[in-house]
Amino acid sequence: MTFPPLRDELRGIEPYGAPQLPIDVVPVQLNVNENPYGPSAACIADIAASAAEAAATLNRYPDREFVALREALASYLTRDAVSRLAGARTSTTESSIAPEQVWAANGSNEVMLQLLQAFGGPGRTAVSFAPTYSMYPEYARDTNTRWVAGHRAEDFSLDLDAARDLVKTEQPSVILLPSPNNPTGTALPPEAVGVLCEAAGDEGIVVVDEAYGEFRRSGVPSALELLPSYRNLVVTRTMSKAFAGAGLRLGYLAAAPEICDAIRVVRLPYHLSAVTQAVALAALRHAPELLGKVDELRAERDALVDWLRAEAYDVADSDANFVLFGRFADRHAVWQGLLDRGVLIRETGPDGWLRVSVGTPDEMAAFRAALTDVDGERA
Amino acid sequence: MTFPPLRDELRGIEPYGAPQLPIDVVPVQLNVNENPYGPSAACIADIAASAAEAAATLNRYPDREFVALREALASYLTRDAVSRLAGARTSTTESSIAPEQVWAANGSNEVMLQLLQAFGGPGRTAVSFAPTYSMYPEYARDTNTRWVAGHRAEDFSLDLDAARDLVKTEQPSVILLPSPNNPTGTALPPEAVGVLCEAAGDEGIVVVDEAYGEFRRSGVPSALELLPSYRNLVVTRTMSKAFAGAGLRLGYLAAAPEICDAIRVVRLPYHLSAVTQAVALAALRHAPELLGKVDELRAERDALVDWLRAEAYDVADSDANFVLFGRFADRHAVWQGLLDRGVLIRETGPDGWLRVSVGTPDEMAAFRAALTDVDGERA
Repeated sequence: MTFPPLRDELRGIEPYGAPQLPIDVVPVQLNVNENPYGPSAACIADIAASAAEAAATLNRYPDREFVALREALASYLTRDAVSRLAGARTSTTESSIAPEQVWAANGSNEVMLQLLQAFGGPGRTAVSFAPTYSMYPEYARDTNTRWVAGHRAEDFSLDLDAARDLVKTEQPSVILLPSPNNPTGTALPPEAVGVLCEAAGDEGIVVVDEAYGEFRRSGVPSALELLPSYRNLVVTRTMSKAFAGAGLRLGYLAAAPEICDAIRVVRLPYHLSAVTQAVALAALRHAPELLGKVDELRAERDALVDWLRAEAYDVADSDANFVLFGRFADRHAVWQGLLDRGVLIRETGPDGWLRVSVGTPDEMAAFRAALTDVDGERA
Repeated sequence: MTFPPLRDELRGIEPYGAPQLPIDVVPVQLNVNENPYGPSAACIADIAASAAEAAATLNRYPDREFVALREALASYLTRDAVSRLAGARTSTTESSIAPEQVWAANGSNEVMLQLLQAFGGPGRTAVSFAPTYSMYPEYARDTNTRWVAGHRAEDFSLDLDAARDLVKTEQPSVILLPSPNNPTGTALPPEAVGVLCEAAGDEGIVVVDEAYGEFRRSGVPSALELLPSYRNLVVTRTMSKAFAGAGLRLGYLAAAPEICDAIRVVRLPYHLSAVTQAVALAALRHAPELLGKVDELRAERDALVDWLRAEAYDVADSDANFVLFGRFADRHAVWQGLLDRGVLIRETGPDGWLRVSVGTPDEMAAFRAALTDVDGERA
């Protein structure tokens, strides 16, 4: 055997990750869907004070059940995400979310891994619909779960009949449904979640990945509203995107308490550090500020879609803080041309398409100028 | 199927974890081998400043390769752990450890999970020798790795011939060797690591878990010294114990660069938050202070062993910051009696034995008084 004795299916695989280039080399970074706005001085000071408080007893293990953080996340989901962000635009029938319905980990990444450790694994199947988030098959691979990818329609929407048929045929124990989808930006229609929860039945959980949920357009509901109706529904969120906390690595979910209890069996004890818990709590106290740029980013996103269409690009409808556009005979050349002009975007998704994150007005102006320039040169 | 659709082997399993009781309820907590000494005001201030600096760009993802932290850990292992802690007591043949030989994650827990994801898994076997750390079979279970436990001798030492035979028979891809062992406190003899590395060959990695390594007695070497000799050797460490950073959740390892590269395939991207990286770097700058109590704790540990033996208890030799003692016909009654007197220890390890962490002189006095009292009552 070749040393080291890595598992066969992992040999020759490149680790996941977009290129990380220094900001002084590439000033406009629109490749990993970060929120371009950092926290205020008041928020930074609160984070520092909270870290100091946690550090005073750093010799002790953290609260394994992160009770205060679960309470704060539940309260946030109940008060802010549901009523403020979604409720104003959609229905008023939301019910509250209790702390025992909330789970959190070091990024949505770890939440997903835990879900697949508990509910996937050898002899079981996970399903999603391509093109979709490229980490999903990696979660499946890393948990030895069989991976089946159905296909989205030409416009990246879900063909609900075909999706239901695939669920009936494959009988997955985990269905991964991002909404909005990455990298296409496509939100699920309201009825899709219910149909697939019913198709999955008690043998499967349906994970609606709302990492970008706060950016959805008016009239697009959150799957949080459906939690009272489907006990096999899991809605995941993150503090990385709308919440402007990518550096914090805090992902979480809302689901039936039995699902949270099941995850506790596979979670590594003390998986959330005392500092992570303290800093996340501080950030949640500043939720209105941190989320304050969401509407601005949504408007910037819609303007970007309009501009790209006016320039005759193909553009996928987007409910996220990024836009998939194309089509290019040689997308890599366009990506490289933009990079040469100081604008880093992402070469991902179906061939011919590129993905750009929504940044500040200045960053978007730089992107538009660079793209115009690159295309002019190629014309 | 019963809802939720948890994997069969996880049903009815209680999540891992010692009872967490508030300090105002149980003032003397000697159950999870924490360092009883918190950081200084200067260290706390540095941690707060570092967290603030990380928070200023919290909207951005952290350095996925945590380059600065790997450099600092490599430098620490080279300068402090090897030369100061071990070198003064053992050989002077240590070579330096390079950043590409270092990997880190959220606690040794996550380091171990990643090792088993990369090198264990379905169709592969992990081996250790019981009684040993109760999380090891959980790492194996959570990665669908077959688990084989050999047995230690009556005095908890490793029967090296039997261990080698087991490795030859089972051909494990991962061998877990804690040194000192938890919960017995037993260090490996110097020759054991080499013998088992050779028995494992290129088909297996040997993980020497030195979570408690800094507490070992004079003359007991670290497996770090053997890294130049065995490319299949992995030495894990943690900042939780001697480093007094249990709340930080930072575990790490030193190994051949090929092993670190292999782990990168299964690590979740951005697994170490910007705040964790910054706080760990701050703690490493205060290494002499944080590690400053190690010698005191070692002396307290040796005094505890002597006292227990003078009181006619059976006591396992300990190279750690805890002591396993017995034997009790009803160990739960003793554990409860101590708890009733405000002293929380751990009911773990072989039946009849109890484990107590080494705390401050006041905490140890409280433990001795409570144990005398409990035993007097039972006499």
